[in-house]
Amino acid sequence: MSFFRFTPAFANPQGSPIRELFPYLSRPGMISLAGGYPSPSLFDQEGLATAAAQAMTTGATALQYGATEGSPALREQLAAQCQARGIRCAASDVLVTTGSQQGFDLLLRVLVQPGDVVCVETPAYPATIAALRQAGARILSTPVDGDGLNVDALQVLLEELPAHERPRLLYTVPNFSNPCGTLLTQDRRTKLVQLALQYGFVVVEDDPYGELAFTDQRPAPVYAAAQAWLQAQGGEGENPVVYLSSLSKTVAPGLRVGWMVADPAVLRRCTVAKQTNDLCTSPLAQAVAASYLQSGRYAQAVAAACAEYRRRMQALTNGMKAKLGNLVQFVQPAGGMFVWLTFDKGIDPQKLFDAAVAANVIFVPGKAFYADNADLHSMRLSFAAPDVVQIEQAVERLAQAFAQAR
Amino acid sequence: MSFFRFTPAFANPQGSPIRELFPYLSRPGMISLAGGYPSPSLFDQEGLATAAAQAMTTGATALQYGATEGSPALREQLAAQCQARGIRCAASDVLVTTGSQQGFDLLLRVLVQPGDVVCVETPAYPATIAALRQAGARILSTPVDGDGLNVDALQVLLEELPAHERPRLLYTVPNFSNPCGTLLTQDRRTKLVQLALQYGFVVVEDDPYGELAFTDQRPAPVYAAAQAWLQAQGGEGENPVVYLSSLSKTVAPGLRVGWMVADPAVLRRCTVAKQTNDLCTSPLAQAVAASYLQSGRYAQAVAAACAEYRRRMQALTNGMKAKLGNLVQFVQPAGGMFVWLTFDKGIDPQKLFDAAVAANVIFVPGKAFYADNADLHSMRLSFAAPDVVQIEQAVERLAQAFAQAR
Repeated sequence: MSFFRFTPAFANPQGSPIRELFPYLSRPGMISLAGGYPSPSLFDQEGLATAAAQAMTTGATALQYGATEGSPALREQLAAQCQARGIRCAASDVLVTTGSQQGFDLLLRVLVQPGDVVCVETPAYPATIAALRQAGARILSTPVDGDGLNVDALQVLLEELPAHERPRLLYTVPNFSNPCGTLLTQDRRTKLVQLALQYGFVVVEDDPYGELAFTDQRPAPVYAAAQAWLQAQGGEGENPVVYLSSLSKTVAPGLRVGWMVADPAVLRRCTVAKQTNDLCTSPLAQAVAASYLQSGRYAQAVAAACAEYRRRMQALTNGMKAKLGNLVQFVQPAGGMFVWLTFDKGIDPQKLFDAAVAANVIFVPGKAFYADNADLHSMRLSFAAPDVVQIEQAVERLAQAFAQAR
Repeated sequence: MSFFRFTPAFANPQGSPIRELFPYLSRPGMISLAGGYPSPSLFDQEGLATAAAQAMTTGATALQYGATEGSPALREQLAAQCQARGIRCAASDVLVTTGSQQGFDLLLRVLVQPGDVVCVETPAYPATIAALRQAGARILSTPVDGDGLNVDALQVLLEELPAHERPRLLYTVPNFSNPCGTLLTQDRRTKLVQLALQYGFVVVEDDPYGELAFTDQRPAPVYAAAQAWLQAQGGEGENPVVYLSSLSKTVAPGLRVGWMVADPAVLRRCTVAKQTNDLCTSPLAQAVAASYLQSGRYAQAVAAACAEYRRRMQALTNGMKAKLGNLVQFVQPAGGMFVWLTFDKGIDPQKLFDAAVAANVIFVPGKAFYADNADLHSMRLSFAAPDVVQIEQAVERLAQAFAQAR
């Protein structure tokens, strides 16, 4: 018997299902469509090196402990980003977090108790499912379609629930979602806000990908839709949406800089929770991020990333249309890093995965994105890391794998 | 009524009692003995700027996501630090954390459920008390004396507890503790290990200050004492100690780089918990830390810090002996950043605090360091941030305040 007695959530811990794929990634010649990492070739290394050098010249500020809320300079810059996205907010409405992952973790601490119901758009980001399981939440999977979270289906679901089973929280990635790449329509954004106010749940809007748009079609965040709705109702009431975002997909994940915008009561409690979690996000990383955003290079770097990701997305989706044909279904994404693919029920998912690995291409099997009732005939493909030539090869190999698995 | 329904721990959240002092700190002419911050004048800014420049030249590694366990280069360096302190360990035994604060937070997730009993040496680090309250733990205050945690008193306490009331965890800062500055004796280290094994609790050894020694008197960590004890017993069994440390007091808090060494079963679960907390500690900060430790400047920087903190400690303790005399009692610390002071019961603590603030000197009232039954006639003084001249002035002002409050 072990000396250690672990809490139930950690008695038999399961690591990330995506990390389980790591051993395959190191095989020579493997092309990975599995990762969720941005392309390192798109990092503005020169601009970030300059920002790092500048951060180190600001006296000891970047090296000392900082305020839990975040550095004033960075909060200013992040508030400006939010304003550009359509959110009315000031620096004081921003809490800097250690990635947007920490933002969600803090929210669970202050809003969710074991046994509470949490709605999650499904398929969903696996770390969200894992965080909810660790928190002891009951996960209520909520369907999505080509336009993002299916708000009508959510309404039906909410109407049928007894009052004590109602969700405390709903998690969604409305802009170019992980794993589906879909964009929530404007009508659905407003309706989601109305449902949140009516049924009393908090909407967690996770928005790491919103800047990576391939077209001009960019609705304002759900947070902004809520501001507009509340104003139209007379300006009373608290915003039921918590907005999370991150520099991980637009600047560099290595900074681990994300942020939260929320009602002051939520923000204050998350700040108290952060005091006991990591005291503050690395002031060094914050200083680098603030310097970089101040440098004015951000807009150009993001534009370059959008153009390149768009090329890669097209290589992938055009290739699949040409080579995989009727065996697969997918929605062409208007931004982000991912395509969600479902395939013919006649194909065995495990055989397909094995054949793909044998052909030196890898994807994340759909199972990873479900808390329950997984659609096994699905997968997430990322076009972010491989270049166009690699993507074309990857599609050839996928076609081989499908042919073998049929 | 608020739209938001918060979890019980956050219904009426209290911020850090030390942060409540912040408004006083900005008063012109105030000398603070309140902070727990290391002296920025001791940061090796030149060495860290070089390390930062180097980190930015290592391709995209410092900018990309990294392994949750930490970067291989940094884990090597931190394992070497542990070995120098007397711990047998390899890089694979090290989990890099976002400050040692995150290490404790992760441990609570995997080891403590609401209602579980946790022993805390008292007076204690306030963020530990806050973290335990948020986790719903029942805190059992365990007394300390001039030699650190009073292990004999702990034994009596454990013997009297019914089996179901036994602690799951014990938290201690054995080396130059916060707030007491005391050093746990070697005998007590071994006895603490024996009690942990006998009564089945995990010892959390928080060691951010151990390198800041003013004498050669530096017992190996409790973790090493446990390794020695287990080996003497035949080498069987799991180490009941979890070792936490940090670069915050020796290199720079702005990195937010700490680490954990623990039994593989604990380490694996904390890694899974970290995946949903912040995915990984900033790879940029890790790269800077690894470069800095590899540069060989660490030993000299720490030696300089020890010498300067020793001078400041002597200015404070000599000053207090000369000016405060019999009104106060304290143990002269052999390292670290803090002196714990208790004072005559005839003096009103609030009057003393107000008189000190009026005289432009500030300290942390002892109340902040207790979960219950606070000794109000106490305070924590930090000699880390002010220089010797400021400390001498601070003591004069403290003496005025005592004279006024009597």
